[in-house]
Amino acid sequence: MAIHTISPHSPIGIFDSGVGGLTVLRTIKAMLPNEHLIYFGDTARVPYGTKSEPTVRKYAIEDTKLLLRYAPKLIVVACNTVSALALDSVQETAKGIGVLGVIKAGAKCALEKSADKRIGVIGTQATISSYAYQRELHQLSKDVQVFAKACPLFVPLAEEGFAQHEATKLIAKEYLAELLDSRIDTLILGCTHYPLLKSTIQEVVGETVVLIDSAEAVAQDVKTHLSQQELLSFDSPKPPRVLVSDMPQRFQSIAERFLGFRLHHLELVSLDDLSAYADS
Amino acid sequence: MAIHTISPHSPIGIFDSGVGGLTVLRTIKAMLPNEHLIYFGDTARVPYGTKSEPTVRKYAIEDTKLLLRYAPKLIVVACNTVSALALDSVQETAKGIGVLGVIKAGAKCALEKSADKRIGVIGTQATISSYAYQRELHQLSKDVQVFAKACPLFVPLAEEGFAQHEATKLIAKEYLAELLDSRIDTLILGCTHYPLLKSTIQEVVGETVVLIDSAEAVAQDVKTHLSQQELLSFDSPKPPRVLVSDMPQRFQSIAERFLGFRLHHLELVSLDDLSAYADS
Repeated sequence: MAIHTISPHSPIGIFDSGVGGLTVLRTIKAMLPNEHLIYFGDTARVPYGTKSEPTVRKYAIEDTKLLLRYAPKLIVVACNTVSALALDSVQETAKGIGVLGVIKAGAKCALEKSADKRIGVIGTQATISSYAYQRELHQLSKDVQVFAKACPLFVPLAEEGFAQHEATKLIAKEYLAELLDSRIDTLILGCTHYPLLKSTIQEVVGETVVLIDSAEAVAQDVKTHLSQQELLSFDSPKPPRVLVSDMPQRFQSIAERFLGFRLHHLELVSLDDLSAYADS
Repeated sequence: MAIHTISPHSPIGIFDSGVGGLTVLRTIKAMLPNEHLIYFGDTARVPYGTKSEPTVRKYAIEDTKLLLRYAPKLIVVACNTVSALALDSVQETAKGIGVLGVIKAGAKCALEKSADKRIGVIGTQATISSYAYQRELHQLSKDVQVFAKACPLFVPLAEEGFAQHEATKLIAKEYLAELLDSRIDTLILGCTHYPLLKSTIQEVVGETVVLIDSAEAVAQDVKTHLSQQELLSFDSPKPPRVLVSDMPQRFQSIAERFLGFRLHHLELVSLDDLSAYADS
């Protein structure tokens, strides 16, 4: 049973380890403009992708408890690492509130698009090592073949604005060579930063490989879920609320690169508050 | 007045945001094999270089309090970001225990080596934006000219083992072009990760530019300080103690790349303990 009353007017809570999940916020906003969105980016502890499972679980629980303060009707885990390692911790913490992660959404979408059932997955080291996409794909289809590769440099390259750089192409060629040798026909971009590198990745893998953007996939899942639960909002649109745990100098410019529009207001949540939520 | 009794037998405490400072541990160990070294790497919250000053200060105070539990005779701040933004917070917290940072050490060493007094500095965004190296160099010399450039991709490239990669050369050429146009004769590697890219950086800047490794510079400072204070140890050598706040999957392999030898034992400090130290 939900721990607070929910209605179509309740907000959707979205969280990520940092700014990457703003691509998810942007896509949900475009698809469902009447929804009230609250986003939390844990910029004081980003990235999660290089940290251990116990640490990722602890952070995920704190992030979820923070969002629960805003009485959401749904929680969207925009972070692939949390979706891979700690979705069950989020679900337990959310006690009956719907939880949607990017991994199931991306896996379902890839299977719909793949003709040969030869699917590639790229993501952070933590996401790939967790086998979460591989497991999800095999649960959904018995005859799928999955080829996975961690691409740790794609996140800093995207943040540094090197998306179209010659160096990024060289690195992409090296990372993606074995997936191409395996003749994949579909490639899941299993990290919220990767859509920024879409054109470079597409160039390297060739036009015949379909790229799956997990932000689009999870936005579609959100729409389906709310519609089934009769929780779609018809309120007039308002700007999303964006909360962060740290406000580094270059945050604004990076955030705009991911969001596609200027953020006029950011709210800062202190780390002490965040830890305090964990005890409540 | 020091908050605990110190003697030549007391350990040297070293901390960093993560594994990068292991290059400092390694260099001190090589130069002063009889010293007992305790290292803390805040791997649960790494990197500091992309975070704001208040957050870096908070973390630096917690890291210092953790090391004080081991009653050190000296604290070495291996992290350039902390040395740049929060050395005063470390000094206040250490209450009379000596504190040495990599920035002063690197700046002094660069001025000794530079004939033309045209010095370049590279580091993380936070280190460069803090103007700490620029300020330190100008305090030590009135006629020095300093040219600084943030190189955010060098850390992930070093961690990913791409030190000699063609993509790294392309990125280095782009980052370092304006420093070369400014005809620097000395270049400070203002980040503990950068010594791993030394040969690539040297190739790009040419043999005439002297590279300053801040790990070597601070190890020299440690020796001078201990000798002046009559605190040099003559105990028999023992292996360093290495503490971390998170133990991600690939830590062991990355640590070995930085340390040059295998770590047989790592101690895990929980984040809750770390925050608790801050209140004590």
